[in-house]
Amino acid sequence: MKKVKVYVTLRESVLDPQGSAVKGSLHTMGYKEVADVRIGKYLELQIEPSDRDLNVVVKEMCEKLLTNTVIEDYRFEVEEAN
Amino acid sequence: MKKVKVYVTLRESVLDPQGSAVKGSLHTMGYKEVADVRIGKYLELQIEPSDRDLNVVVKEMCEKLLTNTVIEDYRFEVEEAN
Repeated sequence: MKKVKVYVTLRESVLDPQGSAVKGSLHTMGYKEVADVRIGKYLELQIEPSDRDLNVVVKEMCEKLLTNTVIEDYRFEVEEAN
Repeated sequence: MKKVKVYVTLRESVLDPQGSAVKGSLHTMGYKEVADVRIGKYLELQIEPSDRDLNVVVKEMCEKLLTNTVIEDYRFEVEEAN
């Protein structure tokens, strides 16, 4: 069993209204040192061994379902599940 | 300027209906090797230097606004912003 951690972030050129709202709230709360907030997704997948290459499978899943590659970037890490 | 990466995950004991839905879709698409999906948040904060301790400030922000500590866990990493 492998554990795959997928990090999905908005592309640099894409506005992040949710991040802007959080930044505004943090300023209101007194955290003026916060210059920028960007919000993305973090996915943890548990994947059973199969005869397919894990990296290829994860890349396919990311591009077909887990991310919107028009506006999002992603990267992933594979580790042994405990 | 520091870049802080915050990873927010649902606690183990909390059901993740969004993750279950994604897992169901992946199975329908033929990725039967996916045993579990958990979905969390990933935040990137840019923080300007201040006279407060960065780790203390980030912990406060996480506990007051960024996460719901009843149902979520978080961890964060600090690195130099480019």
